Amino acid sequence: MNPRDKILIINGHPDPESYNKALALAYEKGALATGAEVRSIHLHQLKFQVVLSYGYRKRTELEPDLQKAQDSILWANHIVWFYPVWWGSLPALLKGFIDRVFLPGFAFKKRENSLFWDKLLVGKSAHIISTMDQPTWYYWLVYRAPSHRAMKLLTLEFSGIRPVKITSIGPIRLSKDSFRKKHLDRMESFGRKRK
Amino acid sequence: MNPRDKILIINGHPDPESYNKALALAYEKGALATGAEVRSIHLHQLKFQVVLSYGYRKRTELEPDLQKAQDSILWANHIVWFYPVWWGSLPALLKGFIDRVFLPGFAFKKRENSLFWDKLLVGKSAHIISTMDQPTWYYWLVYRAPSHRAMKLLTLEFSGIRPVKITSIGPIRLSKDSFRKKHLDRMESFGRKRK
Repeated sequence: MNPRDKILIINGHPDPESYNKALALAYEKGALATGAEVRSIHLHQLKFQVVLSYGYRKRTELEPDLQKAQDSILWANHIVWFYPVWWGSLPALLKGFIDRVFLPGFAFKKRENSLFWDKLLVGKSAHIISTMDQPTWYYWLVYRAPSHRAMKLLTLEFSGIRPVKITSIGPIRLSKDSFRKKHLDRMESFGRKRK
Repeated sequence: MNPRDKILIINGHPDPESYNKALALAYEKGALATGAEVRSIHLHQLKFQVVLSYGYRKRTELEPDLQKAQDSILWANHIVWFYPVWWGSLPALLKGFIDRVFLPGFAFKKRENSLFWDKLLVGKSAHIISTMDQPTWYYWLVYRAPSHRAMKLLTLEFSGIRPVKITSIGPIRLSKDSFRKKHLDRMESFGRKRK
């Protein structure tokens, strides 16, 4: 049983006026009402270089905002991610955040002379809330949900974060106000349940 | 039958000294030897903002380097992509290039009041050459190759580019020089075959 008393919300949408941000704020409101400690990171507010310039060959120094983000990831016992699916994948801003923050030595540690690795972020759970412009069942069934697999299996669980729950909301494009309102209410309720 | 006389090579690795770059150069050498016209874009050399700041709500103006890249994509009849798989996905630099360049009106056009769209980049084929730090069969079988699905199905084919061939090379980590040399030779031969 995970108490989920320390919740970190990460909003990966670059647009300060996005629906994703509204969803994240609704979740935060619900979670705060339960007395949970909540920290929120809106990536569009951070100052950091999005590109991992030398890949894994040479270190790129962490900016203060990324150091704080690492501290908050270590602090949290539940991490809730909000982002849109663009091109079957994450927006570059969020991908860059992961490339820069989920470093060897922080998120995982490769074993010498072995293809295996140690997972360094164990003991935390996560929830991905992901918007898309296609019907969510179509994204799962026909495309096999590549962004979900990349994020859940190959990023979060790779680093020891589990279980990882996924909620998909779509299609956003052409959606009615009532659809958007319904999901905002749902997020607030997720927050209250620390889901 | 695609004549493939205009080949565009796009290297998405941010590191100027990467193995991906060496692979791209080997392919270029082979293709030039056949008399094909070849253009190469190494993303680490371009000047552009990686983040699509307002999503699809508000236009972000294209930098000259991205305008040139769009011209080269329109010019090419075969596009060869080189990049590493990081976190089951593309490096942020390449994802940002796609977010910024593959815009509505350039790569696709959504139809009014419909979830369908017109594909604007028809008549071009592509080849993805993708390196990874895990065994390639494991990436396909266990993880269902999310970066391949995102890039092939939800980016290139979504925009009308097809067929899309995929070549995976891995694991790169702990690989021997002979393994790396073999794949460099293979790329040169792919270039000669305009594969």
